[in-house]
Amino acid sequence: MRSHYCGDLRSEHIGEDVTLCGWVHRRRDHGGVIFLDLRDREGITQVVFDPDREDSFNLADSVRNEYVVEVRGTVRGRPEGTINKEMGTGEIEVLGKELVILNKSETPPFQLDEHQQVGEDVRLRHRYIDLRRPEIQRKLRFRSKITHNIRNYLEDNGFLDIETPILTRATPEGARDYLVPSRTHEGSFFALPQSPQLFKQLLMVSGFDRYYQIAKCFRDEDLRADRQPEFTQIDIETSFMDEEGIMGLTEGMIRRLFIELLDVDLGDFPRMPYSEAMHRYGSDKPDLRIPLELVDVADLLQDIEFKVFAGPAKDPKGRVAALKVPGGAELTRKIIDEYTSFVGIYGAKGLAWIKVNELEKGAEGLQSPIVKFLGEDVAMKVMERLEAKNGDIVFFGADKATIVNEALGALRIKVGEDMNLIEREWAPLWVVDFPMFEENSDGSLTALHHPFTSPSCSPEELIAEPEGKLSRAYDMVLNGTELGGGSIRIHDQTMQKAVFKVLGISDEEADEKFGFLLNALKHGAPPHGGLAFGLDRLVMLMTGSTSIREVIAFPKTQSAACLLTDAPGEVSAAQLRELNIKLRKTP
Amino acid sequence: MRSHYCGDLRSEHIGEDVTLCGWVHRRRDHGGVIFLDLRDREGITQVVFDPDREDSFNLADSVRNEYVVEVRGTVRGRPEGTINKEMGTGEIEVLGKELVILNKSETPPFQLDEHQQVGEDVRLRHRYIDLRRPEIQRKLRFRSKITHNIRNYLEDNGFLDIETPILTRATPEGARDYLVPSRTHEGSFFALPQSPQLFKQLLMVSGFDRYYQIAKCFRDEDLRADRQPEFTQIDIETSFMDEEGIMGLTEGMIRRLFIELLDVDLGDFPRMPYSEAMHRYGSDKPDLRIPLELVDVADLLQDIEFKVFAGPAKDPKGRVAALKVPGGAELTRKIIDEYTSFVGIYGAKGLAWIKVNELEKGAEGLQSPIVKFLGEDVAMKVMERLEAKNGDIVFFGADKATIVNEALGALRIKVGEDMNLIEREWAPLWVVDFPMFEENSDGSLTALHHPFTSPSCSPEELIAEPEGKLSRAYDMVLNGTELGGGSIRIHDQTMQKAVFKVLGISDEEADEKFGFLLNALKHGAPPHGGLAFGLDRLVMLMTGSTSIREVIAFPKTQSAACLLTDAPGEVSAAQLRELNIKLRKTP
Repeated sequence: MRSHYCGDLRSEHIGEDVTLCGWVHRRRDHGGVIFLDLRDREGITQVVFDPDREDSFNLADSVRNEYVVEVRGTVRGRPEGTINKEMGTGEIEVLGKELVILNKSETPPFQLDEHQQVGEDVRLRHRYIDLRRPEIQRKLRFRSKITHNIRNYLEDNGFLDIETPILTRATPEGARDYLVPSRTHEGSFFALPQSPQLFKQLLMVSGFDRYYQIAKCFRDEDLRADRQPEFTQIDIETSFMDEEGIMGLTEGMIRRLFIELLDVDLGDFPRMPYSEAMHRYGSDKPDLRIPLELVDVADLLQDIEFKVFAGPAKDPKGRVAALKVPGGAELTRKIIDEYTSFVGIYGAKGLAWIKVNELEKGAEGLQSPIVKFLGEDVAMKVMERLEAKNGDIVFFGADKATIVNEALGALRIKVGEDMNLIEREWAPLWVVDFPMFEENSDGSLTALHHPFTSPSCSPEELIAEPEGKLSRAYDMVLNGTELGGGSIRIHDQTMQKAVFKVLGISDEEADEKFGFLLNALKHGAPPHGGLAFGLDRLVMLMTGSTSIREVIAFPKTQSAACLLTDAPGEVSAAQLRELNIKLRKTP
Repeated sequence: MRSHYCGDLRSEHIGEDVTLCGWVHRRRDHGGVIFLDLRDREGITQVVFDPDREDSFNLADSVRNEYVVEVRGTVRGRPEGTINKEMGTGEIEVLGKELVILNKSETPPFQLDEHQQVGEDVRLRHRYIDLRRPEIQRKLRFRSKITHNIRNYLEDNGFLDIETPILTRATPEGARDYLVPSRTHEGSFFALPQSPQLFKQLLMVSGFDRYYQIAKCFRDEDLRADRQPEFTQIDIETSFMDEEGIMGLTEGMIRRLFIELLDVDLGDFPRMPYSEAMHRYGSDKPDLRIPLELVDVADLLQDIEFKVFAGPAKDPKGRVAALKVPGGAELTRKIIDEYTSFVGIYGAKGLAWIKVNELEKGAEGLQSPIVKFLGEDVAMKVMERLEAKNGDIVFFGADKATIVNEALGALRIKVGEDMNLIEREWAPLWVVDFPMFEENSDGSLTALHHPFTSPSCSPEELIAEPEGKLSRAYDMVLNGTELGGGSIRIHDQTMQKAVFKVLGISDEEADEKFGFLLNALKHGAPPHGGLAFGLDRLVMLMTGSTSIREVIAFPKTQSAACLLTDAPGEVSAAQLRELNIKLRKTP
């Protein structure tokens, strides 16, 4: 119906007769002339209706915001002084000759440019209005570009797009499953997949060699701000390729994506062992844009009498670390109190600090509630190790290592953001050499990734001393966010049995849960590995979004509901009966 | 790890040192030399191990079928007389120098080239073996090519790939939903979508203008041979485009796909009104590769005394039609009996026939149990209308029109296939001008497509006389299969209310089921329409498959089970308790 998109008109079109279709973004009546700002997905064009064409003028006078109209007219240059350099179409306008109202609109529940004045609930309930906002349109278009770019890269590299089932069995990620009652198999349930993990491994056993899928995954978890019950994964798996090959290939994918879509060259991604990341940044996904680092000081503090520090310093599972913030001596007591509450979220019982006022005066020049407990000598040794300078503040964490890492790691990012210490826009890296296992509170071991991740030692070495053994896993991190994670998988039965043994998984349990994969490993499984990217997070980062709901067309709330469609909803008794289930209690 | 795929080696590689990875397809011991046929996804290469390299020779001697190995060696030309023109790699072989066994394999449950000797159950249970068959590999690779080609076409045409939810509400297709109990909203259920229909309409209301998605859809129906509980749809919707535009665009997509992937030019697709398709072919998805047609003969038969014909001929809802099959006079009594049973499946109470032996003798030359009931004169008039020739057979259907259409429509295809009457490989067409409604047995009306399909008349005309009104729907048909269907949707509230009124849907019911869409129509919905293709069927047709399970990596059985993973399965009582449901009866 249209000859051009509204947003595509430029001065090169002056003199052309055009037909536009779109929404009335704003209607103005100015100097006896009607101006309609006509909007479509490409942008806005100003259309002018003169009173000398009475029919269309009267019709234009009658339209309201968000009416859908078709306009025929002629492109002309805007008069001097009315050119709008901010708009792509700001040099031209369309002189409207014919106007057709294709559909009317009731007054919308909120105006597009006033979306911030209404709660997110209102916007989600009327998502079809909210989605008209140019910012959201831009983000979802960008998402479409991202997936297309990635698909092209993977196809160019010989990857096959293969669909795996949605109605399936529990997968090994260990989060809570969404279940689907089966009608034809009474009392049985499908699970929605938490990832295509097992299927992609089977595809390698089948010899597809290079698989990818942009796949929906499901986790029935209590939602944090950046989670959704259904999310999208860029899922990749290859055979006969080691970690170098897989990391190189996927790093190339992300690098090309940033160059082609953002004109940003991310360069080669540095690699950092997990242990270094935890030590220097208190995190396995460090945000390297922030130049602050954690420094261990336990050795300096283990012999002092102050138990708060000396205790964790002597505990093999404890950690005492310091975080030096240049310029932080200016922080007010109020802000320091806020930071103390902030680290409390992560379990820290307090936040010790030292302001470095006049280092040339020795310990006298340090302002702190804790110097007296450290002793002046020790305090100065700490300053020396930190290479502290006047105007710095030093924060301390002393507790179980996990708490110190989480608390100071989070504080590091918060302070970095608050004090504008972010040095560059993009900081990618690979975190490698993950531990194979982590310890549960009862001393038993769990797989840090999943039990199909390959250790980097032999089965015998693994069984002899599982603690401290590394896996062949790798995570891609960007700006403190885990973009993707993967590993070389176990393809050898002996190794798989060794891992199960360490995890205390019996043959029966393994067989019951993953029998089909174990069987596949017996029938010629090739060496293989892969990686899965979180698409939603990638889009968030690339579009500078602060909420995952901005990059998903129809998102759910934190209570896993869709306000637009009112899902989940009630169903009839007859439907439940067909599925052989009933409600435990009536809601 | 590899330098080349096995299947990629050609005589141009002679003299090169290569590294291959793959599966031992077959091991032969011939003249003191070991031959391994090494297979990967690109094909098979013959690798030769001489006894003079003892280590690798002995290792090669020890391998068995489906072992995974890495081979280093040198490409050389095959000796005269051993060249195999059938294979891409048939001019060369690799002289193996080093061999590494990457993984062993137990004896597989069936040999790849003996798959037809085992039941489909065995193959589905060991799908990772079955998927190694070159034929299935080829089909799934072709599927990946199809989706990539289609995505490129749609992206080139400005379509945005936008994901819609899987955890959602019941959609308007009316089949049985798969339900997902909500944990956070006790007693409530999500439904898995039967299509993204409502969401794609909302995206048009939001102004995305051109949307597509290759989307998983779900229907909990009793499965026919060519159905799966989850299937994949190529879903397309556009705004400000009429049926000509949409049909042109999607026809272009399929035409390009066939040219680029099969080197087949489908040409312009003919268009046929629904009524003509039913009359000439007894089907709304006629297979035009078969030159047989149904011919109405009711007017010739309505006055005869033979009630079997005269009854339906006089019934306004009846039909009496004839199907002439050239050369069919040769059909044996046994085959005709088979056809009689065959039409019985569709409700036909019998299958009358006339063999045309010697037309020059008049009715004397007709061989038939029914000529005596027709009368010779009438019988000859029928022959005249059919332009019958010696050697033909004419079959008759006389019943309710729906039964005659289904029975003779199906017989037409069966006879066409049995007698090799298929004239060309590909016969696409558009079926258009569908009725808006169909009549239920109680005389009430149902939407032939769905209630959001736009009628091709005004709301007033629709209400005044809904029977016989047409819709703006269109189906793309290829070789008797519906590849895709779509329509211009209703964007106008008054029209939507008129359709609901005709369907007897109250305002409350409409609001309860589709309130969010009706609300969206009030807020500036543009004219819009679209189409959805069944990807699985498209792949079936293009790969010449006879079962949908051949083009899906992990298909389900007709009882909607996955034999490989044993899904659906039992879940724990604790899981059900968390979801606030229990089993009605224990299985």
